[in-house]
Amino acid sequence: MPSGGSRPTNIEMTKFELNILGCGSATSSLKHLPSSQVLNLRDNLYMIDCGEGAQLEMRRMKLKFSRLNHIFISHLHGDHCFGLPGLLSTLALLGKTGTITIHIFQDGADQFQHLLGYFCREMPYELKWHIIDTHKAVIYEDNAITVTTIPLRHRIPAVGFLFAEKPKLRHIIAERVKQYDVPVYYMNSLRQGKDYVTPGGVVIPNAELTTEPDHCVSYAYCSDTAYSKRVVNAVRGVDWLYHESTYGDDCAKQAKQRYHSTARDAATVARDAGVKHLILGHYSKRYVDDTILLHQAQEVFPHTILGNEGMTLDLNQV
Amino acid sequence: MPSGGSRPTNIEMTKFELNILGCGSATSSLKHLPSSQVLNLRDNLYMIDCGEGAQLEMRRMKLKFSRLNHIFISHLHGDHCFGLPGLLSTLALLGKTGTITIHIFQDGADQFQHLLGYFCREMPYELKWHIIDTHKAVIYEDNAITVTTIPLRHRIPAVGFLFAEKPKLRHIIAERVKQYDVPVYYMNSLRQGKDYVTPGGVVIPNAELTTEPDHCVSYAYCSDTAYSKRVVNAVRGVDWLYHESTYGDDCAKQAKQRYHSTARDAATVARDAGVKHLILGHYSKRYVDDTILLHQAQEVFPHTILGNEGMTLDLNQV
Repeated sequence: MPSGGSRPTNIEMTKFELNILGCGSATSSLKHLPSSQVLNLRDNLYMIDCGEGAQLEMRRMKLKFSRLNHIFISHLHGDHCFGLPGLLSTLALLGKTGTITIHIFQDGADQFQHLLGYFCREMPYELKWHIIDTHKAVIYEDNAITVTTIPLRHRIPAVGFLFAEKPKLRHIIAERVKQYDVPVYYMNSLRQGKDYVTPGGVVIPNAELTTEPDHCVSYAYCSDTAYSKRVVNAVRGVDWLYHESTYGDDCAKQAKQRYHSTARDAATVARDAGVKHLILGHYSKRYVDDTILLHQAQEVFPHTILGNEGMTLDLNQV
Repeated sequence: MPSGGSRPTNIEMTKFELNILGCGSATSSLKHLPSSQVLNLRDNLYMIDCGEGAQLEMRRMKLKFSRLNHIFISHLHGDHCFGLPGLLSTLALLGKTGTITIHIFQDGADQFQHLLGYFCREMPYELKWHIIDTHKAVIYEDNAITVTTIPLRHRIPAVGFLFAEKPKLRHIIAERVKQYDVPVYYMNSLRQGKDYVTPGGVVIPNAELTTEPDHCVSYAYCSDTAYSKRVVNAVRGVDWLYHESTYGDDCAKQAKQRYHSTARDAATVARDAGVKHLILGHYSKRYVDDTILLHQAQEVFPHTILGNEGMTLDLNQV
């Protein structure tokens, strides 16, 4: 009996891309922009943090404003959220419809509601404020992903976000379903893993008709935070970890004092949590050449790359 | 008797430069940034409007944050002031001392005070809010300039700003003061125009000892506004006029409806007010090539140039 089959060509791989709009730290520089990222999952865009200038970077990276419906704000330091008023105003000027949900701490909702209530009175879209707190919790889900907060260790309340794809459907092997004459209405059941029973009562095991579903990709964003064992536990086994690395070994003391991480701290989290890939970011502007951070991280965890503005990563390439 | 003399080399020309940080209109684009300018008068920086990203442009144009002490906000549309929270936070992070004064409408002071009260609690500098209104008034002066508001005609309260250099001191002719043996302590009196009386009682007319002072440069910033005769009167005879030209002739109706100007409107103001130079700006993103606006303006007022990001103009070159 044939076991499985070649990957069907009629099933498209789910697009899951990470776009880095800004990966600098609080003091602005000409090298890096303040924090912001956009996850593109099947052309639905999820923004994580929204530093000043994020809307411009979205344009530069050709990310469609119309596809953005959720913004997740990690904490209330200006370099992670001062781009919100401009972005939300631009969306209004562009006539965006539907809903934008901002997942944010209560104080942030209060502050920006106050400001937008004055500056942006007529909005063609509905603006929702979803209040989050520092407890680990699933704060969002749709049919493709769940978003879980990760308690971080910073000077003020801060959370990371774990984006995890939900279990996917199995792939149908076209020639087999044809061979067994499986009716079209049964395809979804097959993809969910059910066996097929022929009109004659013969049970065809699902494994003969389908192949394994695609891997469910997971991505964790952790910025800003000091090294934390709770973070290690929360990101255990993820495919991709973005972990702040504000400083290098030379500023380990400063990192601790300010509740930030060194590149080595980030790599230690990645190694101890057994993640597949580590992306560094939130670089202090003191480093003229960020590769010093990369090398220090790679001593601990070789699968490390430097995040950078304008970078698009295919998260399926685990 | 010799009349006057060659320009003394020991007197430096007063630096007076206009730096254009952003000259786009409300909807962000990759061509232009939201409104912001920095006047550099003898290395004292005066910012006019502060759209999102202004702090980054300051860095790009190598304008020193430490030399910035006054920010003038024309009106409370986001594209003219959403860069304030980021800029003021960065100034705090950089440890700026002294005072920053924001000249702004009451509502703007209320809004940004509220936001900064939360996001920027510890400031090493003093932040002052100087409340302006729509009446023409001298809102600021120091020993070099006066700043007068210009009532504009926009959808919401808006003012322009007229920066006028104060009368300058005359230039001393070195060889003449040597010839008449004028004591050093008298130099300032000479520069103020006083005659010199020798110990023997002979009156040496000031015109023999000094030359005319430099021209007092004036610069008017008018954005956002529809065409307005009051603006014409307010900017009469200025050396440099920056006047918004959001639209071209094709959108004259739209300009009126939205209380904006066409390039032709801007040029009409310049011509009727008898200014020396017109700078266009606040371009709608609909124009792929802004020279269409330039040509329409130049039909009415030939001494027109296009403002652009990164441009530094020597305002002394009248």
